Amino acid sequence: MTDPHPVPSSLPTVLIVGAGFGGLKAATALKHAPVRVVVVDRQNHHLFQPLLYQVASATLSPADIAAPIRHILRTQKNAEVVLGEVRAVDLAARRVDLADGTGLSYDFLILAAGSRSSYFGRKDWEGLAPGLKTLDDALEIRRRFLLTFERAEQEEDPDLRREWLTFVIVGGGPTGVELAGTLKEMARLSLPREFRRIRTDRARVILVEAGSSILANFGTGLSEKAVVELERIGVEVRLGQAITGIEARAVQLGGERIPTRTVIWAAGVAAVPLAASLGLEVDRIGRLLVEPDLSLPGHPDVFAIGDLAAFLHGSGGALPGVAPVAIQQGDCAANNIVATLGHRSRQAFRYRDKGSMATLGRGKAVAHIGHLSFTGYPAWLAWLFIHLMLLVDFRSRVFVFFEWLWAYLTTQPRARLILRNGPRPGAGEPSGKDA
Amino acid sequence: MTDPHPVPSSLPTVLIVGAGFGGLKAATALKHAPVRVVVVDRQNHHLFQPLLYQVASATLSPADIAAPIRHILRTQKNAEVVLGEVRAVDLAARRVDLADGTGLSYDFLILAAGSRSSYFGRKDWEGLAPGLKTLDDALEIRRRFLLTFERAEQEEDPDLRREWLTFVIVGGGPTGVELAGTLKEMARLSLPREFRRIRTDRARVILVEAGSSILANFGTGLSEKAVVELERIGVEVRLGQAITGIEARAVQLGGERIPTRTVIWAAGVAAVPLAASLGLEVDRIGRLLVEPDLSLPGHPDVFAIGDLAAFLHGSGGALPGVAPVAIQQGDCAANNIVATLGHRSRQAFRYRDKGSMATLGRGKAVAHIGHLSFTGYPAWLAWLFIHLMLLVDFRSRVFVFFEWLWAYLTTQPRARLILRNGPRPGAGEPSGKDA
Repeated sequence: MTDPHPVPSSLPTVLIVGAGFGGLKAATALKHAPVRVVVVDRQNHHLFQPLLYQVASATLSPADIAAPIRHILRTQKNAEVVLGEVRAVDLAARRVDLADGTGLSYDFLILAAGSRSSYFGRKDWEGLAPGLKTLDDALEIRRRFLLTFERAEQEEDPDLRREWLTFVIVGGGPTGVELAGTLKEMARLSLPREFRRIRTDRARVILVEAGSSILANFGTGLSEKAVVELERIGVEVRLGQAITGIEARAVQLGGERIPTRTVIWAAGVAAVPLAASLGLEVDRIGRLLVEPDLSLPGHPDVFAIGDLAAFLHGSGGALPGVAPVAIQQGDCAANNIVATLGHRSRQAFRYRDKGSMATLGRGKAVAHIGHLSFTGYPAWLAWLFIHLMLLVDFRSRVFVFFEWLWAYLTTQPRARLILRNGPRPGAGEPSGKDA
Repeated sequence: MTDPHPVPSSLPTVLIVGAGFGGLKAATALKHAPVRVVVVDRQNHHLFQPLLYQVASATLSPADIAAPIRHILRTQKNAEVVLGEVRAVDLAARRVDLADGTGLSYDFLILAAGSRSSYFGRKDWEGLAPGLKTLDDALEIRRRFLLTFERAEQEEDPDLRREWLTFVIVGGGPTGVELAGTLKEMARLSLPREFRRIRTDRARVILVEAGSSILANFGTGLSEKAVVELERIGVEVRLGQAITGIEARAVQLGGERIPTRTVIWAAGVAAVPLAASLGLEVDRIGRLLVEPDLSLPGHPDVFAIGDLAAFLHGSGGALPGVAPVAIQQGDCAANNIVATLGHRSRQAFRYRDKGSMATLGRGKAVAHIGHLSFTGYPAWLAWLFIHLMLLVDFRSRVFVFFEWLWAYLTTQPRARLILRNGPRPGAGEPSGKDA
């Protein structure tokens, strides 16, 4: 095994695995530190995941919410970027092995590789109900969603037509809620004039949540308010009902069988398998238990942050897998490395909750920020503004702003393209006859 | 075989196969005609093909140059859209068969299904050297292009590094020329600051043309001028040299062997196989020979237009496979159908040549319009303006304008994303070791 990434300088190497919110923040926080920063990610881009559902719903293009990691770090002279997938970590030898057979050495390691969709051990559901974690996932959901209307338009049998026009979204967290709202709005507002035989506005969008409320973390009445708003635009919200089966043409919901061709999974995530592969203690969903300073027990040179870390030192269990936690932890881990190099003591991580918000379709949202809860148009405007400001670079902000303005004024989002449909005819294409 | 598309009215059905420039023009030209228009295409979108190379070079996103066919025709009450691939035409029974087993009947048929990349019978070259005909093709070329720089950055061996950083584009028509110019400009202007080990500006872009000149149809000195401009930005132009072999890691160019990982095919097209399947006379590249009124010999109810038709009735052989020919033929075929229904005589097709133009990188182009030939910045501005005006709808114009303005001012095109790289690790990914 060769090492094609020799340390060119005598500076200690901080290796960061994953360029999501946490990893990228850690990298930029080390910009002026006396270290060499190496960021490794299996994608070439940082993804602004909170807007991923808008790529799935064809409002935004991938380039609107993603930027090459190299581009983001281009002026950070002490940073290098490696495109590669980490297969294993050798904690004793202080090196990670990549899928292509090469390896990377480190003095400090920050694990920030995030989470993936988890199907609670039901591997067979994975192919039937895509999750929404990557741009490829989003394009696949977009493709399936748009194709169902094409199939429905060509279907004569009213029962089969209803089957095509039924969408089941599993999981009532922010992703499931926002996806349900935006898909129903597309069927209701964007598509009707384009079809001659079907009433797209009658498409059923069913949001299934096994727990007793959607947006459970939002608290104080916002959950009930969100249900009211979703139902107002026609989303069917099923609370306290668990999916017990997913087939190619139906879901089983307790005793009820709902014929459908499209099931989207937003019900659960787990840490990437790399976390459990270390042989250290993990929680129920595979996240690494971390010390107050975010290092791994017994390994002060290794930190875990974001979705693959379980930070249990506050009140009320582990912190949720959201961007603000990852960002603040990335900053904390970077600062603790700098402190260690300067022979100063490390700080314990302390989370500052900035609030939560979710859209519920056109002009509607729920939000709580600090002690304030608000809903409707003001919450929606706040959501728009905050998400525009959080986008990682200026150019994304400009283009996303115009895309939103366009979609709002016309109800016609631009990106309604079915890709991967053409070049190799008949390859894995859902058809009206089989599946 | 069932027919799920019964004629709902007593109007004659005009079935249009393909929603490219020709098919779409034919459809819209029949907007007020007493006919039912059915447009069938295997993609859900109309593609503005002249800008496809900019999706490949990461300047534009798919949504910038493509729009759903349904969306374009949404207000045309007599038009229906079917997503499907035509497998066969039964001229006697007046029906076409789709890949999903259904069929569509017609009174008039317009074949406008276009062309595909042709490898002169070298089937084995197809997987090694992707062509540029669809959005999926463009995204695949973009992916390969961006990945090579990642591999080169991780490669220690200078010979292998040079191999990664060599790009061969086969074919000196407008597609090959524009692609060569834009890829060289990206390597020269956009990427350098993002890499730490490689000099991206030293990447070799080699444009190979078997004939004696590039842009051969442009005539009068523009071809020589284009060579000068391409060489000025560093593109190597090889004239009169034919590719004799393509392997995974090299091309054979006469006696010379050039190590490379990236070969792009822009050397030849042929009509889609549907054309030859009719059993009528076709030319050397599979195009249907048509009568002066664009109908097929012996079948006055069937028309062939655009890239799959060979119109031999002017001077100087068949017309080239370019958008203006397809658009004018779509109009003519539609008018001839209306004339036939009104018991008037049909008109012979007459092509009005509006000129040709091609970009040669940033701020440079060659153009001839009417009797005028011009080059450099004025030609480039004319190119920008005309292509913006030709984009099918207003929203694309606005967004493409801003993307171009952004790319020009910053030299940082936005869409540099490697997709289809993440979700299924190791699936068909070029690696530094094998291939």
